[in-house]
Amino acid sequence: MEYINKESSSLYNCWLNYDKEVTLSDEIKEILKTIQLNEEGIIINTAVKELSRAIKKLIGKTPEIIKDTMLSHIYLGKLKDKTIKLVPGGFSIKKSTLNQKNIIEILGKDENGILNGVFSFIRAIYTGSNINEINIVDNPRNMVRMINHWDNMSGDIERGYAGESIFFKDNHIVENKSRIRDYARLMASVAINGIVINNVNVHKQETKLITDELLPEVKKIADIFRAYGIKLYLSVNFASPMEIGGFLTADPLDFNVRTWWKKTAENIYSYIPDFGGFLVKADSESRPGPFTYGRNHAEGANMLAEALRLFGGIVIWRCFVYNCKLDWRDRSTDRAKAAFDNFKPLDGKFDENVVLQVKNGPVDFQIREPISPLFGALKQTNEFMEFQIAQEYTGQQKHLCYLVPMWKEALDFDTFANGKDSNVSKIVDGSLFKTKYGGVAAVSNIGGSECWTGHPLAQANLYGYGRLIWNTFLSSDEIAREWVKLTFGAEKDVEQIIVDILLESREVYEKYTCPLGVGWMVNPNHHYGPSVEGYEYSPWGTYNYADYKSIGVDRTVATGTGYIGEYEPTVADKFENLATCPEELLLFFHNVLYSYKLKTGKTVIQHIYDTHFEGVEKVDEFINKWETLQNKIDSKIFDLVMEKFQIQKKDSREWRDVVNTYFYRKTGIDDLYKRKIY
Amino acid sequence: MEYINKESSSLYNCWLNYDKEVTLSDEIKEILKTIQLNEEGIIINTAVKELSRAIKKLIGKTPEIIKDTMLSHIYLGKLKDKTIKLVPGGFSIKKSTLNQKNIIEILGKDENGILNGVFSFIRAIYTGSNINEINIVDNPRNMVRMINHWDNMSGDIERGYAGESIFFKDNHIVENKSRIRDYARLMASVAINGIVINNVNVHKQETKLITDELLPEVKKIADIFRAYGIKLYLSVNFASPMEIGGFLTADPLDFNVRTWWKKTAENIYSYIPDFGGFLVKADSESRPGPFTYGRNHAEGANMLAEALRLFGGIVIWRCFVYNCKLDWRDRSTDRAKAAFDNFKPLDGKFDENVVLQVKNGPVDFQIREPISPLFGALKQTNEFMEFQIAQEYTGQQKHLCYLVPMWKEALDFDTFANGKDSNVSKIVDGSLFKTKYGGVAAVSNIGGSECWTGHPLAQANLYGYGRLIWNTFLSSDEIAREWVKLTFGAEKDVEQIIVDILLESREVYEKYTCPLGVGWMVNPNHHYGPSVEGYEYSPWGTYNYADYKSIGVDRTVATGTGYIGEYEPTVADKFENLATCPEELLLFFHNVLYSYKLKTGKTVIQHIYDTHFEGVEKVDEFINKWETLQNKIDSKIFDLVMEKFQIQKKDSREWRDVVNTYFYRKTGIDDLYKRKIY
Repeated sequence: MEYINKESSSLYNCWLNYDKEVTLSDEIKEILKTIQLNEEGIIINTAVKELSRAIKKLIGKTPEIIKDTMLSHIYLGKLKDKTIKLVPGGFSIKKSTLNQKNIIEILGKDENGILNGVFSFIRAIYTGSNINEINIVDNPRNMVRMINHWDNMSGDIERGYAGESIFFKDNHIVENKSRIRDYARLMASVAINGIVINNVNVHKQETKLITDELLPEVKKIADIFRAYGIKLYLSVNFASPMEIGGFLTADPLDFNVRTWWKKTAENIYSYIPDFGGFLVKADSESRPGPFTYGRNHAEGANMLAEALRLFGGIVIWRCFVYNCKLDWRDRSTDRAKAAFDNFKPLDGKFDENVVLQVKNGPVDFQIREPISPLFGALKQTNEFMEFQIAQEYTGQQKHLCYLVPMWKEALDFDTFANGKDSNVSKIVDGSLFKTKYGGVAAVSNIGGSECWTGHPLAQANLYGYGRLIWNTFLSSDEIAREWVKLTFGAEKDVEQIIVDILLESREVYEKYTCPLGVGWMVNPNHHYGPSVEGYEYSPWGTYNYADYKSIGVDRTVATGTGYIGEYEPTVADKFENLATCPEELLLFFHNVLYSYKLKTGKTVIQHIYDTHFEGVEKVDEFINKWETLQNKIDSKIFDLVMEKFQIQKKDSREWRDVVNTYFYRKTGIDDLYKRKIY
Repeated sequence: MEYINKESSSLYNCWLNYDKEVTLSDEIKEILKTIQLNEEGIIINTAVKELSRAIKKLIGKTPEIIKDTMLSHIYLGKLKDKTIKLVPGGFSIKKSTLNQKNIIEILGKDENGILNGVFSFIRAIYTGSNINEINIVDNPRNMVRMINHWDNMSGDIERGYAGESIFFKDNHIVENKSRIRDYARLMASVAINGIVINNVNVHKQETKLITDELLPEVKKIADIFRAYGIKLYLSVNFASPMEIGGFLTADPLDFNVRTWWKKTAENIYSYIPDFGGFLVKADSESRPGPFTYGRNHAEGANMLAEALRLFGGIVIWRCFVYNCKLDWRDRSTDRAKAAFDNFKPLDGKFDENVVLQVKNGPVDFQIREPISPLFGALKQTNEFMEFQIAQEYTGQQKHLCYLVPMWKEALDFDTFANGKDSNVSKIVDGSLFKTKYGGVAAVSNIGGSECWTGHPLAQANLYGYGRLIWNTFLSSDEIAREWVKLTFGAEKDVEQIIVDILLESREVYEKYTCPLGVGWMVNPNHHYGPSVEGYEYSPWGTYNYADYKSIGVDRTVATGTGYIGEYEPTVADKFENLATCPEELLLFFHNVLYSYKLKTGKTVIQHIYDTHFEGVEKVDEFINKWETLQNKIDSKIFDLVMEKFQIQKKDSREWRDVVNTYFYRKTGIDDLYKRKIY
């Protein structure tokens, strides 16, 4: 890991940059001088420390912490007022008077709530809210707000684009854990309360994370997390009983196997009493799982659930299960159907501390996918949403792609699973079907790079993810604006430029990559750069079926794979019908002629040409806009973003030229505007 | 390396299988009882040992070796008769009478000649020649007959398809060298006299092969080789003076660098007095070279030549130099021109102990390429041919592809470089331009697999390579037949079946892979399996430019890249003109419409469809023919070949379907016979 002078690095501090100039009234400054505190606790201590750290920067003086005071002060504590409804992690912040003195009360439902309140209060200050009139009651929408790391103990990160792991190096847990602490603080600042530290693909060494050999070091990370209100989770290898337990089977119905898992759980909890639970990728992409023993996913998951139940842990079972050895010749098969086909029949069969974790789309984190039909289909099963902050298919943190709008689309999608207004948010938060656990998880985009995320503007995704899943009613614009203010603390015009770039970025990336929801026009394996046919004749089930006259996957019920039939009728009808199918997903659902006219009046082929040219032009615009920020924002951030933009400029041209040339060569249809196609 | 019971393994013994039944006259049996020998020498000892080994199997008794005898005997010695013209390595074998006793004289020009004579005599016996009338004078066509290993010290073999290296393991030279000895024997049996043991891509560890750290072990290999008349060569890293010499430069004109190389050479020769020399890949595919210092290839090569000259060593400098960062958009560039463009201007500038090693084709070992125009273009430069026995692009030893016909085509090609009958053989043997060193090199196809070559029938390529470059007048059929007799010792009908399969195999592979010389329709990096566009938008300079109406690379002088102009006018005219261009290379030289009519009357598109269907049918035929051999040949060989055929069966279908589907989707032109295309 590179040496970073943490204190002074604007890249490293991200949105927790307390050095920015803030104008506060004398009244508020007076309040900030004193913190009143009557309670004790690990997380409360963190909250006090964080608040003091900010106040020191704001008023140049560390606040006094006392039990009782007649002065103006901030009060930190748990809420007692029964008229305010808080859920775990929730808080209220209110300015009022007490004994003719001004006070601000930050009251949490619990310790986590107090910490969340403190970060919220600091955020309010640095985003320029009117603190004189502060009055907030804020509850999390989702009970579990989780980050999944795909970090391997080698130090490599699967689909990592921001350096090596901050947790592991050379098959050990890192000795110096100061960076882990800083990371926990960053995550706590956006109310993340669960982190899986290792990759869902659990290799030999990571399998041992649940053994006495590695648990003492895992415990140290859990201790750090605990102080920030974060639970530690581990990805586990379903074949652990064989690989480390010495058994010849991992059959979930085998008594000895079950006993082994129980003992293993007991041992984990002896190190980490608040251990969160297991994340499991089973029977997927060649990972072991219950299928080996003729058991189903419920039997597999319930075995682990049984082991964890006593201790309050949960099993998070991924639904990313599909046949990765499909025959491209067989158009009746459809990978998009796999998650539904595998898990819908098991609805209601999972124990109450099992959660199914479902990717937002039915395939795999493309720049544009419809919602997975499992949201809505499962009515008696805990269900987490899985997003990917890591930009595997969305530019790999070389290209700018602000992902909050994509996630918001997914959460806002109305599944009609329980009549109108059955949006996905209500399913994953547990409210629609009254399920016990609600939550969202996302694959982390961080690593050992100085700015954590490789591309400094990709910090907005990390920040935005936390904020959105706390409060799904926030708009993408609001979240972007918060992040820009906190990170750059900049003038209004600077803020507007950066917000504009962020908000446009996802559609710009989509424009010069793949059109109309078709997806997968990438180089195999590493998933960077254009290759229209890269996955066309592969066993991965990821095709576009482009020929000289048409393109797209017919997933209709009438003539196609029938995938659309997995949605509720209202939704299915919309997708099935060309006239009502959202055009940005046209080629995901339908195979159409290149001459098919879109609502814009353009043909599909002209749309492909136009968007690819426009996308590149937009990147050039981004760069022009960014140039105007020189000397107006931190120079290290400015330079690093510019460096990334230069890559995006070059590589977006490669995308444009390869995709346009591919379709031009295939169709022979000229661009209306005679632009250069090769 | 797997454990092999060498003595009894038909797979391991290859064509040196002395257990076969042979009918000999009593007269010959009598002769075989005694070997007369008046000379001593390391290689002669090997020859005697080999001959005794065969005789013991033939007559059940080890022959007596004596200095003088009045009995019938075999005489081994150097030729004294001045009327017979032998060149180094050459030999004569003749049956005659002496003192009324029958004798067979095996006379060599030198020790190597004696060993070659012995192997030739054994071959004559086991291929059923009439030994009673044996009378052979045989000289090698090429002075240097070389194998290049692309073995890394890690034990991996670059483009190796037959297991791990037999020379290296875990960054060391292997301890137990018995397999290396067996390999030397195999190679000596086909008169190979030079072996480069390490990959032309010389990494960190291999760079040290020329240092005191590793030379003691290298010497042990050289000692083994020496007994078989084989010189050891090493691939060297041009940047060695920096990487191991401690210099800041590797500039070939730098006095200290030159001195370092001289001292290094001196040291190598102190270990290995008959060290062959250096093989160098410089300024190619990111390898270091003289370009870094603004020097040309002649200056780079001559520096090394100077260091080796005193000791009789040579520098073999590869001409595989091209820009591997081309822009696919720019149709004026042409990788095929690179070797010519880089080296033609330097003709005559190389020292006399420098040899340029040129791949047979101008691009890279495709199943069908024209001859490299450097053959003929260089008139004052030593030139080796480079073939690839390893089947990188020709089925990776999973598919059967007997390559001798391809090599023979290359050697027989008339370049017209010095008028008619200027065939490539005459250039590489040095006779046409009276160059000092003539020779052929080829990339090995062997590794630690029991049968050496992964696919047992790929042994025919290893055998055939040695035989062909010794005697370029042998036909592909003769060579195949020799190999089959030696390996299977089988009945006439068995022989015919295997020979037929071998002789057809190259065209069959070509049929279901890529049509009409277009090449490169493979998956990038590993080069196995179909991907029509795999290299289409890459920087590697390997394109087919297929669009909806035409396909092929226009390399004409009139309208294309001008590559054709690098040949002599007679040859160039033939390639330039569509009517005279060999059709198997049509798409290598021309971009034509899919509707273009071939001489068969078929259109190009129908030819593509037909050949792809035919290729697969031919594979099925191979399998049917092979099945008839069960219980007629060694069962281990039978089974292993069948296993490989099953892979070929499956994967040839994948080739067929992907390629046909690709062109059907692109052109929309129906197959005349309405066969299944997806």
